[in-house]
Amino acid sequence: MDYREVTGKREFVARLGHGADWRSEIESLAEDEGVESAWFVAMGAVQDADVWFYDQDEKEYREVSFDEPLEVASCVGNVSLLDGEPFAHTHAVLSRQSGQALAGHLDSATVFAGEVYMRTFEEPLVREHDEPTELDLWL
Amino acid sequence: MDYREVTGKREFVARLGHGADWRSEIESLAEDEGVESAWFVAMGAVQDADVWFYDQDEKEYREVSFDEPLEVASCVGNVSLLDGEPFAHTHAVLSRQSGQALAGHLDSATVFAGEVYMRTFEEPLVREHDEPTELDLWL
Amino acid sequence: MDYREVTGKREFVARLGHGADWRSEIESLAEDEGVESAWFVAMGAVQDADVWFYDQDEKEYREVSFDEPLEVASCVGNVSLLDGEPFAHTHAVLSRQSGQALAGHLDSATVFAGEVYMRTFEEPLVREHDEPTELDLWL
Repeated sequence: MDYREVTGKREFVARLGHGADWRSEIESLAEDEGVESAWFVAMGAVQDADVWFYDQDEKEYREVSFDEPLEVASCVGNVSLLDGEPFAHTHAVLSRQSGQALAGHLDSATVFAGEVYMRTFEEPLVREHDEPTELDLWL
Repeated sequence: MDYREVTGKREFVARLGHGADWRSEIESLAEDEGVESAWFVAMGAVQDADVWFYDQDEKEYREVSFDEPLEVASCVGNVSLLDGEPFAHTHAVLSRQSGQALAGHLDSATVFAGEVYMRTFEEPLVREHDEPTELDLWL
Repeated sequence: MDYREVTGKREFVARLGHGADWRSEIESLAEDEGVESAWFVAMGAVQDADVWFYDQDEKEYREVSFDEPLEVASCVGNVSLLDGEPFAHTHAVLSRQSGQALAGHLDSATVFAGEVYMRTFEEPLVREHDEPTELDLWL
């Protein structure tokens, strides 16, 4: 395990734009405020969602698209630098009218309504290629 | 997107009362401490749950009731003022003994055991009617 | 309900060790840094997972084992003292390639990749036997 102490710098609440992309909105906040590292939690609803699952054997993401309205029952993620740009690594749990839950890495989703809390840190987080997982990881 | 910087004021941990209502307990903490804006994360177990899904076409909530014991695998939400009173907008992911996950907007649930972390802000969040979604949103 | 105000002391970000146990890694961070109370949120992927469901009638945990790769779509928990040692009470929502979500109390899981944010408090949280639930609860 690698860990480091961080120092909270500034914190934000956001209401994501209706019709915009969920993850791009979070990255847009980071860009506008010069945020290079942060954690966030969020909730709301989306009009559709592309969810990714990492194939740990083949080392590739597999996508599932849900072209239907869904609640965002939980959204947890962090902001770091990937290739010099703020990247919002975003995981989400979504739900259907029946209460059935769907979940995974959230690549994109059209916002219906979204509420976000973001806590930023002074210390940057920078993603780099990680050998055993073939993912871009920080620390 | 609308966002604003906020300033953390005070933070609390709570153990929700066995047999009480999950969301009312969180609102009770806010009322007792004069909290007008906050974010919280929580976990635990409930004896039953009423979960809502927003029908984005009809602009109405649909309810599903689960009259069975469930784990609260994730609970994320925020406190804001709605009609002058603290309202805990609460989303949750619940689970059955099989591991099956259910999720949505948590209207009410009978606490079996509940653990909450709440971070409050100096700046109030006030919900008002939003035209495109017909929801009460802040900012 | 019982609650108390807490004072944030230090905060950490961690990358969990590939192949290590998810919960042990979090407890290891707490032990290394002398953390007796904290809340955390996390995300990532695991190679397998043992998930518990509390049988509220029989007052016993039931385990379900998933021997397959899963995304960690949400992980919420807290650190407290249990029998004098840091214990990471950990709930998680996991997902399969289809997007199907599984969830519950996370007893153990083999880390594929894991990212954690932990906020620690000055005031200790100590778990003690609770009569109505027969769980070890703090406050």
